[in-house]
Amino acid sequence: MKIVLIGATGTLGRAIDAQLSASHQIIPVGRSRGQHQVDITSQASVEALFKAIGRVDAIVSATGSMHFGPLTEMTAEQFNIGLQDKLLGQVRLALVGQHYLEDGGSITLTSGIVANEPIRYGANATAVNSAVEGFARGAAIELPRGLRINVVSPTVVTESMDVYAPYFPGFEPAPAARVALAYQRSVEGPQTGQVYRVW
Amino acid sequence: MKIVLIGATGTLGRAIDAQLSASHQIIPVGRSRGQHQVDITSQASVEALFKAIGRVDAIVSATGSMHFGPLTEMTAEQFNIGLQDKLLGQVRLALVGQHYLEDGGSITLTSGIVANEPIRYGANATAVNSAVEGFARGAAIELPRGLRINVVSPTVVTESMDVYAPYFPGFEPAPAARVALAYQRSVEGPQTGQVYRVW
Repeated sequence: MKIVLIGATGTLGRAIDAQLSASHQIIPVGRSRGQHQVDITSQASVEALFKAIGRVDAIVSATGSMHFGPLTEMTAEQFNIGLQDKLLGQVRLALVGQHYLEDGGSITLTSGIVANEPIRYGANATAVNSAVEGFARGAAIELPRGLRINVVSPTVVTESMDVYAPYFPGFEPAPAARVALAYQRSVEGPQTGQVYRVW
Repeated sequence: MKIVLIGATGTLGRAIDAQLSASHQIIPVGRSRGQHQVDITSQASVEALFKAIGRVDAIVSATGSMHFGPLTEMTAEQFNIGLQDKLLGQVRLALVGQHYLEDGGSITLTSGIVANEPIRYGANATAVNSAVEGFARGAAIELPRGLRINVVSPTVVTESMDVYAPYFPGFEPAPAARVALAYQRSVEGPQTGQVYRVW
């Protein structure tokens, strides 16, 4: 398959690339690195990306920023960061990308364990990740031509524990390579509207 | 209790007002009607509302617009309507309003059955309603001073079936008066971080 991988240069993206590139053609896309660059918060940038790449069999997104901070100091403007980036950015990849997918193709987005297991400073993340999963649930029943959409919800990734450990006390991390299996399952499997939890 | 009710002039809002006004002081707020007006998409408008009202014991929101339309024609700009209105609008009421709540006060927001049960043309609604529930889940663990936050998830309301019936085939509607009980449960009960499903 020809698979466009957005977020290819991140910790998770590199593991997904390693897992899928053995049997697929991966087009790596990063924010500032990779074969192509994209700003998922920009409609023009996402449209330009797909115009440059052309038709694909699968779209995999492992990218998106959110706002972390204490609820009592949080502003709506800060909350909107996650809505515009990890949420609407990934939705934009799906809405634009659906028209570039071959029949039977798939979209795989990324949420996270915080959707279900709130953490301190994580109100934006719980909302955003829940919304990404909700979007896939809603989109799955409408996609035509056998197109599929799923979400991978990783726990905190082992390779990121040096930064994130204080926010995830007692959470069991998973190596990026293990999380990458869930993306393969979404891309190569038959299901749609699923959330693959790696936790 | 002194309760500010945003969306007081809508079908659901009027039923909540009727249910709660027997034993509480309700401050009805509408978009263009009611004792006070607010545009929940405007930070200045929400701040002005709470400055005018002052401290309250409970904030109840039964308002917010979303985008409905076929996924294959949906744009990110359209999707953002629901993010800015029903999602960020209600989050803004909570983020600003938390500072006006008396100790032990509560926030009650509104999601909807489409969060869990997708309907045709409803990808935005499933995402937005899921995010509202996620926000409450995340916010509940951080609110200080015994403050609480819950969400009511109504099925399609009987009084709105003349408009919405075609989008909810076989869904069992609930009278607004029955849905209103869930708001009372959130306001007067002890729980936090809950989603009260009326379906």
